[in-house]
Amino acid sequence: MAKVLTSRSENYSQWYNDLVIKADLADNSAVRGCMVIKPYGYAIWEKMQSVLDKMFKETGHVNAYFPLFIPKSFFSKEASHVEGFAKECAVVTHYRLKNDPNGKGVIVDPEAKLEEELIVRPTSETIIWHTYKGWIQSYRDLPLLINQWANVVRWEMRTRLFLRTAEFLWQEGHTAHATKAEALTEAQTMLKVYATFAEQFMAMPVLQGVKSANERFAGALETYTIEALMQDGKALQSGTSHFLGQNFAKAFDVTFTNSEGQIDYVWATSWGVSTRLMGALIMAHSDDNGLVLPPKLAPIQVVIVPIYKTAEELENISVVANDIVAKLKKHGLDVKFDNNDTKKPGWKFAEYELKGVPVRLAIGPRDLANGSVEIARRDTLEKKVVSVEGIDTYIVNLLDEIQENIFTKAFNYRKENTFIANSYEEFKQILDDKGGFVLAHWDGTPETEQRIKEETKATIRCIPLENKLEDGLCMVSGKPSTQRVVFARAY
Amino acid sequence: MAKVLTSRSENYSQWYNDLVIKADLADNSAVRGCMVIKPYGYAIWEKMQSVLDKMFKETGHVNAYFPLFIPKSFFSKEASHVEGFAKECAVVTHYRLKNDPNGKGVIVDPEAKLEEELIVRPTSETIIWHTYKGWIQSYRDLPLLINQWANVVRWEMRTRLFLRTAEFLWQEGHTAHATKAEALTEAQTMLKVYATFAEQFMAMPVLQGVKSANERFAGALETYTIEALMQDGKALQSGTSHFLGQNFAKAFDVTFTNSEGQIDYVWATSWGVSTRLMGALIMAHSDDNGLVLPPKLAPIQVVIVPIYKTAEELENISVVANDIVAKLKKHGLDVKFDNNDTKKPGWKFAEYELKGVPVRLAIGPRDLANGSVEIARRDTLEKKVVSVEGIDTYIVNLLDEIQENIFTKAFNYRKENTFIANSYEEFKQILDDKGGFVLAHWDGTPETEQRIKEETKATIRCIPLENKLEDGLCMVSGKPSTQRVVFARAY
Repeated sequence: MAKVLTSRSENYSQWYNDLVIKADLADNSAVRGCMVIKPYGYAIWEKMQSVLDKMFKETGHVNAYFPLFIPKSFFSKEASHVEGFAKECAVVTHYRLKNDPNGKGVIVDPEAKLEEELIVRPTSETIIWHTYKGWIQSYRDLPLLINQWANVVRWEMRTRLFLRTAEFLWQEGHTAHATKAEALTEAQTMLKVYATFAEQFMAMPVLQGVKSANERFAGALETYTIEALMQDGKALQSGTSHFLGQNFAKAFDVTFTNSEGQIDYVWATSWGVSTRLMGALIMAHSDDNGLVLPPKLAPIQVVIVPIYKTAEELENISVVANDIVAKLKKHGLDVKFDNNDTKKPGWKFAEYELKGVPVRLAIGPRDLANGSVEIARRDTLEKKVVSVEGIDTYIVNLLDEIQENIFTKAFNYRKENTFIANSYEEFKQILDDKGGFVLAHWDGTPETEQRIKEETKATIRCIPLENKLEDGLCMVSGKPSTQRVVFARAY
Repeated sequence: MAKVLTSRSENYSQWYNDLVIKADLADNSAVRGCMVIKPYGYAIWEKMQSVLDKMFKETGHVNAYFPLFIPKSFFSKEASHVEGFAKECAVVTHYRLKNDPNGKGVIVDPEAKLEEELIVRPTSETIIWHTYKGWIQSYRDLPLLINQWANVVRWEMRTRLFLRTAEFLWQEGHTAHATKAEALTEAQTMLKVYATFAEQFMAMPVLQGVKSANERFAGALETYTIEALMQDGKALQSGTSHFLGQNFAKAFDVTFTNSEGQIDYVWATSWGVSTRLMGALIMAHSDDNGLVLPPKLAPIQVVIVPIYKTAEELENISVVANDIVAKLKKHGLDVKFDNNDTKKPGWKFAEYELKGVPVRLAIGPRDLANGSVEIARRDTLEKKVVSVEGIDTYIVNLLDEIQENIFTKAFNYRKENTFIANSYEEFKQILDDKGGFVLAHWDGTPETEQRIKEETKATIRCIPLENKLEDGLCMVSGKPSTQRVVFARAY
């Protein structure tokens, strides 16, 4: 079997690109920076969506859908939003094509120019708060707890499949509240939802914290974030939840009558995770043989490969295999019996290893005779022969064990790659030698943070929630500091 | 209670608009022709999606995602596609905004002009077949059975919520096959899926048939359609499935090596339904009091309204109500106990009637004493007092009965509004007096169909599958005809 992936140690970035393509997760498209999410990759995204959607609904949210296009003028309404937000957007200026009078093909009809240009949404705060104005009059109309699953476009110059693409898929929650306290609680609740999802489903440990002012979402008063550590020692921001104060309500004049009869502006949050999580999932666990998927998000959780020479052998194996499939399906598992006759077992083994199927069963004539099967775990690559008797319970438990093991491995990796730096020299040394999360004292100013970023490419990933207080001196300015914050180079 | 809707007899079109807005299904937005789908409307769409997605997967399909943008040049590649397809598209010409140097706000950066304009997808055959070229080499790669849930944009001049909007949500299946027969079967299979969904879930009877050449999808060799009849006697095309032959494979040079080692072009289908189904659902069943929803797609299937004066009464009612809720949830039903204290029962009754909740329970102190509840059906508006004992089974059966009754009512309406015309005069008379489906002889030429459309606004909705053959003369040209085809004025 030829090696299909560049190894991580050889070239981590190339390993990632190889893996995304070779494991059939996504493809580049004919449109610069836009990806095609292939069926196998999309199946993982669907599982993510399904879990998250359930969690959103359990916390009282409902889904809705707002327009893809936003009038250009909306972007100027919230001052810090327009200033802080990247202006790389797809701009619609015309609404008609016509046949080219000078030849074949079509041209843009110059007479079909829009009076006001439309922006393909890079995020929907503006159009949604414009809409909320019509929906909110009284405190009785609050809270609005609305989420949208949608595509958004940000015209990124350097793109990478899943991690940074011009178009990506995401969910964006936009909530409206009568009080500041309620909005703050909402923003924190959704951070917890994201953290739970990352840790319990993606098996990816995350730091929960708040962003420094420099890294805050444009228009937010506070940005909460979950930060994960990838295998190359770089951090990946995996989800954010913003407390927006009354900024968007003021920009779009959304007021309400409170229970005392007074008029006030509405309080807001927004929060989102995107197909970037696919990148995080891939990078957090996978190895040089391919994807390693947590069982809870794997499109195929168990695959059964028959080893046979004759049609009769296949038939006999199929009886056992189909019985196992039926049993596992009763447990709600996604199982595949791959009896495709045009591929050899070795090819199938490599393929499902590449695709990160957590558990692989192989059944041959000798197994039939012994009433056993060979079980291979994707995470440890261990193989074991076990009895067919009680195989379903065995597999259910094994999947739990794999889920936990993947998490523990990532957790230990993070632990081993979290460092304390007591001087700027040490800080830079750690970043260059090892990467990882680096805890250091910082004087709390945007200027110092900016200088660190320029000199080291590291940014403050977050100030952890319930951070331990510890008096110290900023490693750069020497000014007093009350706590260490978490730095890293990041995706 | 003030009447909230215009009546159907007064102004059907206004009734529809009132209903969509008042029942919180959708709103107009700040962007011309684009709608906001409100949470209640979106919840119905989610149920539709969930059922359809399951049906697609059961017929072997998988989901994927292709780019929102399509290079302009792609549209010229399939000649009849570019000719036949409406050229009203949203055109992206620039990729950056910048601060207006002459004042506040932002302007489009003239230096950020795209080399080739991008079209916001009106449908995705072109970009998908461009992608398939990279995925298909051999018959072993076939069939590809892929579906995508997505938003699309067609710059419609006259828009109506759900029925015709510039942006709408849909699914588009795009399949690739090794043989013509297989592709034809696929197109027909998906038509059956749509018909089953319409009849068994939407409770909306549909005619299944093929389109005449004039009404075919641009680029298709055959377009299969399901056609429903609305309460104003107009037809609504509710879903289409296209046999595309080798047209897109030829346009995008997608060939494969067949099992005999010969190279051939790939065969294609595409098929889709959209949020237009929401319009169909609303118009097919609703009445002057509001929505009438089939239980299988209702976001709230059963609502319980407490009738009480004191807090103690509410408490006692809540015990019974919560018990019923728990029982109904065990049956997988969506139930709501509306104990909101700020609204009176009369207001709630009207609200849930407007929103089409199939079954409403009212529980007051007298019911408590008698061990009974009052049940109201939304479809017939009948009320009945029944025992709390066994209420869950009663309701499960009642919901089935309502689902069936709504279908039967629509089926009978269609039967009563399907007419036979033996002359062009009679044909026009029926259209003007009654509307409905009109079965008439037609000579099979596009010219005659075009003339009928211009003179009567009626089009051929379909030539029914397994249509009864019957010799006759075209009502317009007098030329021989072998079967009656179905005409109607349509949405």
